[in-house]
Amino acid sequence: MKTGRLEAFSDGVLAIVITIMVLEMKAPEDTTFKGLLSVAPIFISYLLSFIYLGVYWNNHHHLMQVTQKVNGKILWANLHLLFWLSLIPFTTSWIGEQSHHTVALPVATYGFVLLMCAIAYFILERVLIAYHDENFALNKLCKSTIKDYISVGIYIISIPLAFVNTWLSIACYVLVALIWLMPDKQLEDLMEDM
Amino acid sequence: MKTGRLEAFSDGVLAIVITIMVLEMKAPEDTTFKGLLSVAPIFISYLLSFIYLGVYWNNHHHLMQVTQKVNGKILWANLHLLFWLSLIPFTTSWIGEQSHHTVALPVATYGFVLLMCAIAYFILERVLIAYHDENFALNKLCKSTIKDYISVGIYIISIPLAFVNTWLSIACYVLVALIWLMPDKQLEDLMEDM
Amino acid sequence: MKTGRLEAFSDGVLAIVITIMVLEMKAPEDTTFKGLLSVAPIFISYLLSFIYLGVYWNNHHHLMQVTQKVNGKILWANLHLLFWLSLIPFTTSWIGEQSHHTVALPVATYGFVLLMCAIAYFILERVLIAYHDENFALNKLCKSTIKDYISVGIYIISIPLAFVNTWLSIACYVLVALIWLMPDKQLEDLMEDM
Amino acid sequence: MKTGRLEAFSDGVLAIVITIMVLEMKAPEDTTFKGLLSVAPIFISYLLSFIYLGVYWNNHHHLMQVTQKVNGKILWANLHLLFWLSLIPFTTSWIGEQSHHTVALPVATYGFVLLMCAIAYFILERVLIAYHDENFALNKLCKSTIKDYISVGIYIISIPLAFVNTWLSIACYVLVALIWLMPDKQLEDLMEDM
Repeated sequence: MKTGRLEAFSDGVLAIVITIMVLEMKAPEDTTFKGLLSVAPIFISYLLSFIYLGVYWNNHHHLMQVTQKVNGKILWANLHLLFWLSLIPFTTSWIGEQSHHTVALPVATYGFVLLMCAIAYFILERVLIAYHDENFALNKLCKSTIKDYISVGIYIISIPLAFVNTWLSIACYVLVALIWLMPDKQLEDLMEDM
Repeated sequence: MKTGRLEAFSDGVLAIVITIMVLEMKAPEDTTFKGLLSVAPIFISYLLSFIYLGVYWNNHHHLMQVTQKVNGKILWANLHLLFWLSLIPFTTSWIGEQSHHTVALPVATYGFVLLMCAIAYFILERVLIAYHDENFALNKLCKSTIKDYISVGIYIISIPLAFVNTWLSIACYVLVALIWLMPDKQLEDLMEDM
Repeated sequence: MKTGRLEAFSDGVLAIVITIMVLEMKAPEDTTFKGLLSVAPIFISYLLSFIYLGVYWNNHHHLMQVTQKVNGKILWANLHLLFWLSLIPFTTSWIGEQSHHTVALPVATYGFVLLMCAIAYFILERVLIAYHDENFALNKLCKSTIKDYISVGIYIISIPLAFVNTWLSIACYVLVALIWLMPDKQLEDLMEDM
Repeated sequence: MKTGRLEAFSDGVLAIVITIMVLEMKAPEDTTFKGLLSVAPIFISYLLSFIYLGVYWNNHHHLMQVTQKVNGKILWANLHLLFWLSLIPFTTSWIGEQSHHTVALPVATYGFVLLMCAIAYFILERVLIAYHDENFALNKLCKSTIKDYISVGIYIISIPLAFVNTWLSIACYVLVALIWLMPDKQLEDLMEDM
């Protein structure tokens, strides 16, 4: 099987997930600056989730570029990833409402879903490597998965941290987003030659 | 006609159907574990429907891989399938709300829509076979449609069963999902060679 | 310019338009058959609109198959068509709510939007013909646009008719849908050879 | 990297953004002409935003036609553009509600988001030019970016203008839309030869 339709379907789901979040930003009744400021928490949580989904889309894009073929297991590993990503609008809207960014459970749940996304992505990578031979470009790329381990580590810390101080957790999520926004030179160079 | 745009449109509809279901999971007002637990029924019904739609996407993907050409009849058989699949978010949200998973009609309606999806998929397969010659790969694949018959059989039983005990019906739906999640060795091997 | 991305974008918009209509079918509070029956009007209006959008997708698909190139004018003629099609969920939900199918204005508005879609499709056809040379397959196809004229004629009658009796208008809309569901032999044969 | 999937994802997001705006047009309770007129402000703001998004889709389409390759920077410049475009449904619904088109802040916010979209598009162009050599078709096209400068200029004026008279701002937004709807002969000719 070719990767074409897997990419098209994943693009479709990611495009929808990234876009429907904005539906949660209801136009405020109050038309003063105070009214506009009232949507700030949901706006900021939208921005953060947009960056996360952008990172996943970019990484998924890179992953599929080096993938030559897919099987049923890979289709399901991909759907598993899409399932957790599809929960991001829910946690984003929970964290963004009222002053829920100061309440432990919504903040911890946001981190939990991010952790599950990272694990699902990791599984997808393993299943892809298992299906390809040893010349598979992903084998080399995996030396650069140090980012994956750091992210997972930070998520695991950030979840209990939410019950201490939610701002510490949120700082962790922002930190992971920044780590991923930094260009991955090694990956890029390899992509260049394609 | 080529299958390209049929696949693209089906992917689009399926991607939206699978994703908009999550919009029904409203962020709870209550930010305690009890509040989070209150979305459990809709979460579980979402998970089940996600798996069903994933199965349909996978099967549709396989079906289109062996299809060489389409005509007007096939376009409509495909739209007919998409129509029933598009009703899954409605039945998912009905079954998931409050404690509707213990009420006969929502549970039976959920099964009825699944039954209609299975019938629509069956019709699509027949129309595809009728349009291709006898060397068509789908002819061979159809020996493996034993899963189709079992599924339809279980759906037919599960609908009246909902009026006896809804948990029996739900067990049926979970059973069918599990049957389809099991890898279809025969199909996979054939796909491999493509 | 190639038609590829025009088709992809149109598929995207049509897939969303056809799917978001189902979001209007809110799960009823009442879990008896009476509750289920309460969604019947919106279900039937959804079904009718689904068929109309299916017809437009099919026709658009056929149109693009014979199109070799597009220019800016065609892109805008296409967006103009998508604009009117995107209003169908609005009129569908207006006609489907409560007993609005017996009220003149929602029924007439439904017809008006269908009329504008037909006119927009007609404009798209003309713009396409003007941009291609005389061997363009669409020139031949246009002998079969008798369906277009009949549809527009029926729409024009059905709009004032809604102020007499809404059921007469609705019968008109169903009639047009049936006309389009009938296979267009001439078109199909031509497509076959492609 | 090829541009294929970048286009597919952008098409997906734009198709959703352009379509979900119509969800804000709630079917009015009142089924008289007065009821229908009550949705006029949201309808007109939808129409204006539809044209803007159509212009962006068209321009993005042209831009990607001349683009041969993309890198990580371009992926993020594109996501940055999609982020601002995804906020258009929010500002459209804010301006369209009740009589918010006569209130300074919603009108100014609408202009601010359009300004950010224009800046994001400008950045995307620069990043694309920087990544391609000097024979890159975009270099020539950029002589025609006079439209970009005029638009940005008008936006910058229109934002403070909203605090004087909202109708002056709205006239500015309509003016920019009209400027972009005018065919760009130079661009078209170049596209023709492709």
